[in-house]
Amino acid sequence: MARYEIFVTYKNGIFDPPGATAERALANLGYEGVESVQIGKYIRLAGDVDLATVTEVCEKLLANPVIEDFRVETVEEA
Amino acid sequence: MARYEIFVTYKNGIFDPPGATAERALANLGYEGVESVQIGKYIRLAGDVDLATVTEVCEKLLANPVIEDFRVETVEEA
Repeated sequence: MARYEIFVTYKNGIFDPPGATAERALANLGYEGVESVQIGKYIRLAGDVDLATVTEVCEKLLANPVIEDFRVETVEEA
Repeated sequence: MARYEIFVTYKNGIFDPPGATAERALANLGYEGVESVQIGKYIRLAGDVDLATVTEVCEKLLANPVIEDFRVETVEEA
C-alpha cells in the first residue's frame, strides 16, 4: 500500500480567509510578532494507487485548481 | 524572520468528517484503490516569534487540543 502526503495552499494573490482570520485573532491576543499566517490543507492518502492517480484526484476533488496549488509527496515506508 | 510549518491532524479515534466525505466521493468516482483519506490543516506562519510561542499559539488558536494533534517544524532559510 502506498502512502502520500498532499499539501494544498492558496495560490499567490488569492485571499486566504482562515489565514487572515488567524492573523487578526493573534494580533488581538497580543502576539504582535506574528507577521503572516497561511492556512491550507494537509491530506494523507493511502491505498493501492500510483502517483499519477493521486495527482488526478487532487485536481478533481481534493484541491480547487482555480484558486489553489497542491504538492504531492510520496511517504517512504520505514 | 522565522518561518514555521504546522501540521494539524485529528487524533486517532476522532472522526474526520472531511476525510470521510472525500473517501466516499472518491469511491463514487470509481477510485476503488484509495483506502483512506485524512484531511487536516497545513499552516505556514512567519514572524519574529520563537518555537515556544508558536507552540503556544497552536494550543490556543490554531489547533483544538481536545480533538487534534499538531506538529511544528521550523523552516530553514535557503
